[in-house]
Amino acid sequence: MDRWPDLPADHPFGPTNLPYGAFLTRDAARARIGVRIGDEVLDLPGLLQADGLADSSIWAGALLEPTLNRFLELGHTAWAGARAWLLETFADPERNDAVRRHLHPLDEVELVLPFRPADYVDFYASEQHATNVGRIFRPDQAPLTPNWKHLPIGYHGRSSTIVVSGTDVVRPSGQRRPKDAEIPTFGPSQRLDIEAELGFLVGGPTAVGQPVGIDEAEEHLFGVMLFNDWSARDLQAWEYVPLGPFLGKSFASSVSAWVVPLAALCEARVDLPEQDPQPLEYLRGDGSGLFGLDIRMEVRLNGTVVARPPYREMYWSPAQMLAHLTVNGAALSAGDVFASGTVSGNAREERGSFLELSWSGQEPMVLDDGSERSFLQDGDTVTITGWAPGPDGTRIGLGEVTGTITPANHPG
Amino acid sequence: MDRWPDLPADHPFGPTNLPYGAFLTRDAARARIGVRIGDEVLDLPGLLQADGLADSSIWAGALLEPTLNRFLELGHTAWAGARAWLLETFADPERNDAVRRHLHPLDEVELVLPFRPADYVDFYASEQHATNVGRIFRPDQAPLTPNWKHLPIGYHGRSSTIVVSGTDVVRPSGQRRPKDAEIPTFGPSQRLDIEAELGFLVGGPTAVGQPVGIDEAEEHLFGVMLFNDWSARDLQAWEYVPLGPFLGKSFASSVSAWVVPLAALCEARVDLPEQDPQPLEYLRGDGSGLFGLDIRMEVRLNGTVVARPPYREMYWSPAQMLAHLTVNGAALSAGDVFASGTVSGNAREERGSFLELSWSGQEPMVLDDGSERSFLQDGDTVTITGWAPGPDGTRIGLGEVTGTITPANHPG
Repeated sequence: MDRWPDLPADHPFGPTNLPYGAFLTRDAARARIGVRIGDEVLDLPGLLQADGLADSSIWAGALLEPTLNRFLELGHTAWAGARAWLLETFADPERNDAVRRHLHPLDEVELVLPFRPADYVDFYASEQHATNVGRIFRPDQAPLTPNWKHLPIGYHGRSSTIVVSGTDVVRPSGQRRPKDAEIPTFGPSQRLDIEAELGFLVGGPTAVGQPVGIDEAEEHLFGVMLFNDWSARDLQAWEYVPLGPFLGKSFASSVSAWVVPLAALCEARVDLPEQDPQPLEYLRGDGSGLFGLDIRMEVRLNGTVVARPPYREMYWSPAQMLAHLTVNGAALSAGDVFASGTVSGNAREERGSFLELSWSGQEPMVLDDGSERSFLQDGDTVTITGWAPGPDGTRIGLGEVTGTITPANHPG
Repeated sequence: MDRWPDLPADHPFGPTNLPYGAFLTRDAARARIGVRIGDEVLDLPGLLQADGLADSSIWAGALLEPTLNRFLELGHTAWAGARAWLLETFADPERNDAVRRHLHPLDEVELVLPFRPADYVDFYASEQHATNVGRIFRPDQAPLTPNWKHLPIGYHGRSSTIVVSGTDVVRPSGQRRPKDAEIPTFGPSQRLDIEAELGFLVGGPTAVGQPVGIDEAEEHLFGVMLFNDWSARDLQAWEYVPLGPFLGKSFASSVSAWVVPLAALCEARVDLPEQDPQPLEYLRGDGSGLFGLDIRMEVRLNGTVVARPPYREMYWSPAQMLAHLTVNGAALSAGDVFASGTVSGNAREERGSFLELSWSGQEPMVLDDGSERSFLQDGDTVTITGWAPGPDGTRIGLGEVTGTITPANHPG
């Protein structure tokens, strides 16, 4: 693989990453699909049209759309075709000038959500996170529910409030029951939290009643994103029995602007932690779906690194989550998103939520400026970054997902 | 209101109902929005274009689309404009011939889903249902959770598996834990159930961070549908702790083909049951949102009436559900759907699920052919019908939602 001219070999957005995004330029009314290289974005429709590919190739035609959804519909062979063309284009020195004509510096464009979310499911795939939450929320019971090691627990979330990195998050209001109170009160959440997760963007639609086997699941996994599942713990604790989280989560979920193709993460594949008891056959298959991903994440609160969650320790694989999601015959749509659930490792500094990092407020975090936090204050900014190992010691960057809390609209 | 020629005055689809649907004719590649009158469907684009309205009115232009979503985006003043024109058109004898030119007999068209579902939320708004389920699933605890009378409990469901009445439902497979077993087994659901509900179709999109007050909620309620929230009780019982129902519900939810405008249900408005304790202010407002709906439902299993659930006994009002759904700042999209949760009254024959009717299998139902059922067998057909009082002793029909169970794709 030739290195893209003038880009340091260790740049996280080198010519083996090539994540997809969507951008607006100052004078454009409609978003365009782009591919990130270094600190620039390649105007994909521009290059495809200049090359004449947009008329002759179905995948190229789909990439002229303002979102990835048409491209996601085409499925994995189209994705592979597009990626092969991109890798070749960036590796060919004779094409450098042609590419350069369609590059925009990132600071001159506005990045927007590159897909229309269809259904959104959030999983709960970290054993350490589920154990911590169980200890905090249900101290009188076993931390893991009896089903936890038999299936990847998940639930549907609100897809219309998935927002792109950089979008402010308005502090949600709602009901919560103060400790030892009989009845609830209403007001802005006082325990506003994050969940550092990985999100998976799904394509290759399927029909209702047709489960996707675990060995085929990978064909529907287009790419990965960093994901922040903002959570109002006080709302959640009061509302979630018996039907699960609702308003404690549905106000906003933030995703990184760049979708890194799963195909760019070959070197990041690792074995899963041991699964004991052995899961049922539909969650095992021939074993090819049982891969983890070595993605290192970093959570910053107002600039201070407060956690480094290790994705490689997640108990359930992305293919297991997708196979489970469809085993009852639920259809997949282009633009479906599922997230992993909070990524937490064994060490305290590897926990992916403030609930766990501050142990429900008992052990506040200390920031570099000396201030303390258990949960988020208005004006606080949370930024999650991530990267994975790439070929030849390079890094595959996942960019960042960032958001700032603005005051509630409904003062309590 | 003149009566539409040749239609019996007591026809449930008379000229004061006028529900919206979408239909395909034999030679059409694209669905068209229609309005039901009697046992015919008015080709709305046909009449609007013949009238020249399609070019001059924004709402009429939106009704040329193959789904209601553009029309739903326009909001309640557009809906009122369209309904006023429709009521006038059907009331004017001089327009009878013009209308007749655009009618199709229902048995010559195929009805399809008239909207692209955006987010879907299912509530749990019947006190009797929640009490029955609590007694069955959690016999060692109080039947209602402490939050139940303080907020309308809800959760997000899968919108891509919302299907139109008449669509077959493939029996879902999945994990369930047999009674007294330590570990789960995999196979087709053995406790496949229904939930007779009312669905609400939402329009008038809102921005993230902007709650809809209860007094404004009605402006976002376009219309109502009959809704069957098929439920695999064995999958649900094993998976739902702690994050709520997932695969036990996400394989299919069926809706009636006709969306009855809320504006057609003025005579059906009734007082809510008493709410004690009084809910928080955001669920009360000036009181205008605290209306129930006198909709009578009938559930048939293979032709035998097994239940008559009374919607008027629902504890939470549709406006309360919508206000609650957005109080944390969650945005509304055109095409959002929320359902009421199972409608159950006090009497045994008023229960809207087989779980309750058979008391979890202990008291099977006896059908007219002498056979017994607790849960659904392959080949069984469930049909839910409904109607509400209309003006002058007439009836507003909601039509039906029907579905037949086909065998599982994954035999266990």
